[in-house]
Amino acid sequence: MSAEHSRPGSRLDPWIDAYADRAVGMRASEIRALFAVASRPEVVSLAGGMPYVDALPLDTLADTVARLIRDRGPAALQYGSGQGDVILREQILDVMGDVGVVAHPDDVVVTTGSQMALDLVVRVFCNPGDVVLVESPSYVGALGIFQAYECDVVHVPMDEQGLVPEALSETIERLRRDGRTIKMIYTIPSFHNPAGITQSAQRRKEVLDVALRENLLILEDDPYALLGFDGVVPRAIRADDADQVVYLGSFSKTLASGLRVGWAVAPHGVREKLVLAAEAAVLCPSNFTQGVVSEFLATQPWREQVDSFRDIYRDRRDALLGSLDTHMPPGTSWTRPAGGFYSWLTLPEGLDATAMLPRAVSALVAYVPGTGFYVDGQGRQNLRLSYCFPDPDRIREGVRRLAGVMEAELEISSTFGTGAALHSPEGSATPGPDLA
Amino acid sequence: MSAEHSRPGSRLDPWIDAYADRAVGMRASEIRALFAVASRPEVVSLAGGMPYVDALPLDTLADTVARLIRDRGPAALQYGSGQGDVILREQILDVMGDVGVVAHPDDVVVTTGSQMALDLVVRVFCNPGDVVLVESPSYVGALGIFQAYECDVVHVPMDEQGLVPEALSETIERLRRDGRTIKMIYTIPSFHNPAGITQSAQRRKEVLDVALRENLLILEDDPYALLGFDGVVPRAIRADDADQVVYLGSFSKTLASGLRVGWAVAPHGVREKLVLAAEAAVLCPSNFTQGVVSEFLATQPWREQVDSFRDIYRDRRDALLGSLDTHMPPGTSWTRPAGGFYSWLTLPEGLDATAMLPRAVSALVAYVPGTGFYVDGQGRQNLRLSYCFPDPDRIREGVRRLAGVMEAELEISSTFGTGAALHSPEGSATPGPDLA
Repeated sequence: MSAEHSRPGSRLDPWIDAYADRAVGMRASEIRALFAVASRPEVVSLAGGMPYVDALPLDTLADTVARLIRDRGPAALQYGSGQGDVILREQILDVMGDVGVVAHPDDVVVTTGSQMALDLVVRVFCNPGDVVLVESPSYVGALGIFQAYECDVVHVPMDEQGLVPEALSETIERLRRDGRTIKMIYTIPSFHNPAGITQSAQRRKEVLDVALRENLLILEDDPYALLGFDGVVPRAIRADDADQVVYLGSFSKTLASGLRVGWAVAPHGVREKLVLAAEAAVLCPSNFTQGVVSEFLATQPWREQVDSFRDIYRDRRDALLGSLDTHMPPGTSWTRPAGGFYSWLTLPEGLDATAMLPRAVSALVAYVPGTGFYVDGQGRQNLRLSYCFPDPDRIREGVRRLAGVMEAELEISSTFGTGAALHSPEGSATPGPDLA
Repeated sequence: MSAEHSRPGSRLDPWIDAYADRAVGMRASEIRALFAVASRPEVVSLAGGMPYVDALPLDTLADTVARLIRDRGPAALQYGSGQGDVILREQILDVMGDVGVVAHPDDVVVTTGSQMALDLVVRVFCNPGDVVLVESPSYVGALGIFQAYECDVVHVPMDEQGLVPEALSETIERLRRDGRTIKMIYTIPSFHNPAGITQSAQRRKEVLDVALRENLLILEDDPYALLGFDGVVPRAIRADDADQVVYLGSFSKTLASGLRVGWAVAPHGVREKLVLAAEAAVLCPSNFTQGVVSEFLATQPWREQVDSFRDIYRDRRDALLGSLDTHMPPGTSWTRPAGGFYSWLTLPEGLDATAMLPRAVSALVAYVPGTGFYVDGQGRQNLRLSYCFPDPDRIREGVRRLAGVMEAELEISSTFGTGAALHSPEGSATPGPDLA
């Protein structure tokens, strides 16, 4: 390594030839810099999937945590089990009762957010070149993990009921005919991120039937299940088959994302591998944040807290849909989520969500362009709108601003023809926590 | 998958053929079951590397955390930066001042314990089959990570000054002659786990010189640096070269392991990759536990807390060494650590630490057999003794019990000849948080 490589401010990386193959594709998304701008308070961000933790009862939580430290500090501040605290694992069974999952505490692995559970599942199952089937579109953070393990991600179409079973079967057949090894079907059946769609009970059964017939693991990512606005909690796919499904849950959306406490429920052999992989990766999840969750669940009316979040997000969903109905130009369509955080919007012909983003940010509104939710360049005409964090008035103002930007773009497009918009930059799938 | 595979209680794993290559070697250590027994209160455990967090001022900490939630709850409970909180990264620079590391907050990546920083570095650098050079013995948790990424771990001899530079050079030359790709030198220069050895300043310079000459990255793992018993903090290798070294630090041993807050300091290009890998793995470290550390550093006399831990561990080190001097049979030797948590003991000829462990646990004392700290079957005559957690009287009692077991073993060995001990089982390198 020569000295000139290491002079201050040099962007040359002397280690460039030393990285692993898997690191070559790790690049910061070009839209990242824009999101730094978009985090300024004057911008209405419909981009990030940040839960509205401001609604938590802070005094109560402060007392809860202080009590945890005073009563059980030496345990809460110590290393713990690689699989997670056994009391919390029992409480998680109770939480999962709502989605119909019946399991044993031994089946549960607590992780540093369910993102880490996802990472561990892929680590345990996927060789470079293995195929993972995902919805179209799919969660940007999952795509980032699949790519980090050099998987080939293949998108399967969705309709208004979610993943299309016939398309799933055909995709599997085609890939296997080509000699490909498929490792799993990754699905977000309830209040999908980013599509805002929920699989019906019948659809879930059909997807499970395909998985059983083709002997493929289902990786069921279910962080939003308790946040359905009509009060119905969709039954998990895992509730109907304990052997074919790894189920992922999270306290990020029902309590606090900053604690980073999620979990996986897995068949016996898989669970053993996940624990060993978790121990290699982090030794153990934080006993302290697990203790905070556990103490909260044990001593506070946590279901009321979830109810209160649900009411907040329902109001915000209503504000979003109402203002979209009012302001969006003709040719625009969007999903009408029955829960969760997101609506998926399709722009009128001639508009490109990635190319439009800088203009939107200039007009003080931000969203996530659709291309981030695909690995294959799809999604230019789509964008994800999150209604979880801004209050209803801000959401309405954000939609007004977005509509203004779209109108201006459409005018350019109709004057100079489709394609007059700037060519959109490549949007890599690197997630960034603000896009979760 | 047939139904008989999934019947309750079956140990057959229907997914056995679906795992990634990297998961094939993931097996629970056979000594693991023993450690479950060893965690019973009547057993003196000289096995685990658990810091004595019981010495923390719990009331103060409870107040600190309650204040964090009341004053900055919405931020502390929210998703944060993938790189970690910028205020904490500035405070980490202050902490690292003691080991001579000068850096910019941008150079720091906060992780879920420094174990995760280690995982990320290997993820970013190592393809399957790449060589990692490690000390002989080396940290069991690092070996677990290297194996999880299918690296070839090659041990380099240590002497009483640590890693031997001549042996390091020769090993590099030999491996390169064989066409091998070496990715890094992994070293724990201060108060080594498990060897209890500290590299002198001259030795560090020599190791760095080899790395510079051979253009190899040094991965410097430094969680114990502030816990030197004579009050001198060894200067980090990273203090003398910012480009050749990735430095890992941790609050697990100086504040609380249960918070899982560690960090890496890396050259610019490497740091960018680490942040992207971290975002894929966990989105972001816990804002909440980072906030706890940050608030503690900002408002409490944290250096006094470290001083107090240092005094506690010095007393325990003295108790261990004093009772080893008194009770160990002839032919036994051990290192005399100047800081940290561990002494490395070499048994008299004819004794096998792994084979002896069940008898030790029956005699109500536990240790970690030496084989866990090697990937190549070395270490049968060695064991690691941790003095960090039990109080001095318990340590003395534990050493008395251990000496009794050794005397009994030696008698069998002298009566029936060397090798009369049970053949020791294979000890896999899977760490387990209790062995950290």
